[in-house]
Amino acid sequence: MSLQAIRYKRGELQLLNQLLLPDRTEYDDVRTVEDGWRAIKGMKVRGAPAIAIAGCLSVGVEIANRDFCSAEELVKFVTDSLAYLVTARPTAVNMTEASTRLSKQISQRSKEGHSSKDKLKDWFLQAVQDMLDRDVEDNKTMGRYGADHILQNVGEKELTVLTHCNTGSLATAGYGTALGVIRSLHEKKAIAEVYCTETRPYNQGARLTAYELVHDNIPATLVTDSMVAALMRTKGISAVVVGADRVVANGDTANKIGTYQLAILAHHHGVPFYIAAPSTTCDLSLRTGEEIVIEQRPHKEMTHINGTRLAPEGIKCWNPAFDVTPHDLITGGIITEKGVFPPDKLETALQQLSGQDR
Amino acid sequence: MSLQAIRYKRGELQLLNQLLLPDRTEYDDVRTVEDGWRAIKGMKVRGAPAIAIAGCLSVGVEIANRDFCSAEELVKFVTDSLAYLVTARPTAVNMTEASTRLSKQISQRSKEGHSSKDKLKDWFLQAVQDMLDRDVEDNKTMGRYGADHILQNVGEKELTVLTHCNTGSLATAGYGTALGVIRSLHEKKAIAEVYCTETRPYNQGARLTAYELVHDNIPATLVTDSMVAALMRTKGISAVVVGADRVVANGDTANKIGTYQLAILAHHHGVPFYIAAPSTTCDLSLRTGEEIVIEQRPHKEMTHINGTRLAPEGIKCWNPAFDVTPHDLITGGIITEKGVFPPDKLETALQQLSGQDR
Repeated sequence: MSLQAIRYKRGELQLLNQLLLPDRTEYDDVRTVEDGWRAIKGMKVRGAPAIAIAGCLSVGVEIANRDFCSAEELVKFVTDSLAYLVTARPTAVNMTEASTRLSKQISQRSKEGHSSKDKLKDWFLQAVQDMLDRDVEDNKTMGRYGADHILQNVGEKELTVLTHCNTGSLATAGYGTALGVIRSLHEKKAIAEVYCTETRPYNQGARLTAYELVHDNIPATLVTDSMVAALMRTKGISAVVVGADRVVANGDTANKIGTYQLAILAHHHGVPFYIAAPSTTCDLSLRTGEEIVIEQRPHKEMTHINGTRLAPEGIKCWNPAFDVTPHDLITGGIITEKGVFPPDKLETALQQLSGQDR
Repeated sequence: MSLQAIRYKRGELQLLNQLLLPDRTEYDDVRTVEDGWRAIKGMKVRGAPAIAIAGCLSVGVEIANRDFCSAEELVKFVTDSLAYLVTARPTAVNMTEASTRLSKQISQRSKEGHSSKDKLKDWFLQAVQDMLDRDVEDNKTMGRYGADHILQNVGEKELTVLTHCNTGSLATAGYGTALGVIRSLHEKKAIAEVYCTETRPYNQGARLTAYELVHDNIPATLVTDSMVAALMRTKGISAVVVGADRVVANGDTANKIGTYQLAILAHHHGVPFYIAAPSTTCDLSLRTGEEIVIEQRPHKEMTHINGTRLAPEGIKCWNPAFDVTPHDLITGGIITEKGVFPPDKLETALQQLSGQDR
């Protein structure tokens, strides 16, 4: 059975509490927007696409089980809730994108006056269901595009691929972004070995990616974040594939802290470096990576592990959750559900393709 | 009071159990060579200079409290014990250097026939006492040379220095190698901030270096190993200074896993990269880093922390304790107690200076 971070049916939502993995597999009920906000902030659910879907579903669950006096009240509740959910983790753009899009659409429908509160509710519930379904579909498409590009670009049949953080079924509605590309390569029997980094301080690689790889029987080895250069030099790596929390117009990409240095190390060793991200992660409203706000996380994430103090009292910490990889280090390309693009061609390509979609 | 990893007087040795830091400060008695071997293997004591000193002192303690039938028996016990201690952790060269040197000297003295077993015992006990005393002295000299070179080279008065692993009082007889250079800079009031990396998987940076820096009131911030590139880009780093487990003839340097990638990241950001190591860490018998044997450590160091499982069952691990930094990335220089040398000048300089010593 494939892993599921999000269990949803109309009026019911459960999120896999990823803080307990790999030790325990527990699903927590989410009944309200507040529950959703807390699950995102506390990192029970994480990964840019999963954050957006879980956030929107939490709005869906609360409105499904609640009565509203008027269409206006419903619309206000939905738009306020979506805006509030964006504040839980500001760097990942998918929640912002979903919030802006859904708020605009529901407001427009309401203004056009042809929707009762019940119709608006049904419309919203269908929209969030579509997000959930579409994410898996897009990931599979992305996986195929990425796998084909890597196989062609690298020109080997037995690949050793490095990934960072968790971008799999646990970070999305299913299948995954960067890990989706790896799953697709594995389906094509092209994976000799996957190396996953621990991804300190939250250990998403050690706890979640390793868990997914073992679960899917993909040959995999764990390394610490400090071993990457030695690994590239002594073992050889065919390609690095990672996800993204926000890709901006010039191709600069915010992703889990440590991504920027992986890109430098890949460049130093001549290893192609790929970003895998759905087009909803691409934020063409920002020109360069300088404009991306980087979330700072609590110091305790670094000084403690499972409640045990690791670092001495009195030491200061610097704990940014993300860093920005400049576009020129993304040497392999940016893999989306619409194709694989060099960073400097991404903006034009997405604009053209989004024109075709309409 | 300054931190002490090693407490020694004739016939008595205690080692600070560094596995318990920063939580508890406990000294364990070392009464035999076997105790010494286990303390080194189990990493109660670590750091190339401290390993050599603790190992040799464990021989000293056992012979001080034990009777031998003859000079031959004593010499055999000493040389066998020293050779055995080398096997505990093979990458750090200082123990090998001390073992070879002391074995040769005690055998020669014995063969020359002018030493009784008591005189040989006294000679050995004096030799290991000298090692202990000399290490602190050499570290202070190294610290001064390094601090002066960095201040001149960087041309700033307020320095932000990054270090990796632990190379301080806890890794040596006192003061430290790379951390000795930082202590010396701090004494000159030239430190704005020290950044220390966690140093996974053993967390020597988070547990030990952070502890020493807080203890000495040196302004210091902890970062994960994955944050270094982002740190260099956003905060700016004046210099990187790390220790070494073995420096070979061409300047290639084995040090704690993660050092090689720090050197690449420093080079990418134009930050000078320094190695600080006493001349006993320099192994001119090897030509290049390719010849250095890299110790592999148990997987459990990566999959568990304080007994709690972090990574799922079934995941493979790669856990080399060290990596090799090629000499051309050591852009600042190699700091020794005899001066600071560019990597390609080290061999000649040490040979000339060792000629002068005689």
